[in-house]
Amino acid sequence: SLCKTCVQRSAELSYADRAKLPNVHPMASRLLTAMEEKQSNLCVSADVTSSEELLRLADTLGPAICVLKTHVDILQDYTAAFGQKLQALAEKHNFLVFEDRKFADIGNTVKHQYEGGLYQISSWSHMVNAHAVPGPGVVKGLSAVGKPLGRGCLLIAQMSSQGSLATGEYTRAVLAMAEEQPDFVIGFICGSKITERPEFIHMTPGVQMQAGGDGLGQQYATPEEVLYEKGSDVIVVGRGILEAPDRLKAAESYRKSGWEAYTKRLGHSGQ
Amino acid sequence: SLCKTCVQRSAELSYADRAKLPNVHPMASRLLTAMEEKQSNLCVSADVTSSEELLRLADTLGPAICVLKTHVDILQDYTAAFGQKLQALAEKHNFLVFEDRKFADIGNTVKHQYEGGLYQISSWSHMVNAHAVPGPGVVKGLSAVGKPLGRGCLLIAQMSSQGSLATGEYTRAVLAMAEEQPDFVIGFICGSKITERPEFIHMTPGVQMQAGGDGLGQQYATPEEVLYEKGSDVIVVGRGILEAPDRLKAAESYRKSGWEAYTKRLGHSGQ
Repeated sequence: SLCKTCVQRSAELSYADRAKLPNVHPMASRLLTAMEEKQSNLCVSADVTSSEELLRLADTLGPAICVLKTHVDILQDYTAAFGQKLQALAEKHNFLVFEDRKFADIGNTVKHQYEGGLYQISSWSHMVNAHAVPGPGVVKGLSAVGKPLGRGCLLIAQMSSQGSLATGEYTRAVLAMAEEQPDFVIGFICGSKITERPEFIHMTPGVQMQAGGDGLGQQYATPEEVLYEKGSDVIVVGRGILEAPDRLKAAESYRKSGWEAYTKRLGHSGQ
Repeated sequence: SLCKTCVQRSAELSYADRAKLPNVHPMASRLLTAMEEKQSNLCVSADVTSSEELLRLADTLGPAICVLKTHVDILQDYTAAFGQKLQALAEKHNFLVFEDRKFADIGNTVKHQYEGGLYQISSWSHMVNAHAVPGPGVVKGLSAVGKPLGRGCLLIAQMSSQGSLATGEYTRAVLAMAEEQPDFVIGFICGSKITERPEFIHMTPGVQMQAGGDGLGQQYATPEEVLYEKGSDVIVVGRGILEAPDRLKAAESYRKSGWEAYTKRLGHSGQ
């Protein structure tokens, strides 16, 4: 981790405090406000292959989550109505939609990929993410589409997978790229807090109650590790909830763990 | 460039020689054979947003190219028949299809993205590419789908865009990752030759007759620079052909320039 002592050094602001900062991006503010209101820092990774199942999941888990993360390109039965239906559920339950597209091409290409094609991601996803490997043009291309719509972008600063190249110098370059374009970049996908700037949101994937891994390089951390020890803001949970016998019960359990770890962190910083 | 003297140091093999190497991947061999037969090291980047236009382009430019590169996710009118139609044109004109998806997620996710969703990329694209930033799991996930189908994967070792983070150590890590999985990785997207191993194919995007750039970070190099000076194998040309008044004439001109640069390189190495 780049910033091991961040949690200790900074005066810890609550999500509600950060939502009101003068330089906070409106989309980040909206997310932080929803987190406070719902007492949830849980993002569910809705990795299912049926649109109907995804929409049912969004409706069932909606009350427990602050963000629903999608992979629209694994849906076998996507139709143009999908985006509107998902937006309606996001309004109903006060969560944000985050299409985990991991844009990673030159600016001119990602512009088309974000706005066009069958999925028209920019029309229904509040947030998207991007790899920094193409250089700042990837953010410029996405921003040309997303900024006029008030969308936000998360840059991938670190990954939860084994042997990831997003470490050290790479992560520092991602941070610099974000700082150059704060009118569109609202935070990071990362394993731990990488900057003291409270306007940026840190989201951490690969979270499960038990640490471990899958057979394809994924490595898991627990909510307590991610939120309390590593100083991240949002936990992203996929299989830990999707493979549970009762998904809502599992989601509630992650929400509660996540909120406890966050309040514990707030309490500590005040001492 | 990592290997400035590669061209000088190595005994330069022809595409035809490399197609017959004992350890060459069957898909790389097929490509090298087509290149030799058609006297073409030209890949056209078919960045259009209409399926019909893309298919017309494939039929018109087919005789001049060795690879057609697609972005299926920018097509506004994609239907399930697209893949089969494109495959038929690839057979007719003896070129390979390369969906430039730039997979960049953990293994379990890219598996679904490659095989499933509306696009079912693995069913019609001979080759795909991937970023190495997630670590080796991204190749393992793709390989689980593509290897049984005889597909090949190109790893993105360098990018043509300004400020790209795919340099130095990153590029070396990509090379190492490729060398570990040569049963699926057939080469690289790169600016210049990065390895002496003649089984690997080097493909270079961002090629135009005149050097320069666009407004979103793209930087262009010429066919002569890429093939003769940098030792790459395949030039990827997009706007230089698509924006020409006569696309077939432009493609023929790039094919001719590319082939001349390659034969000049072969000639030099024999001296």
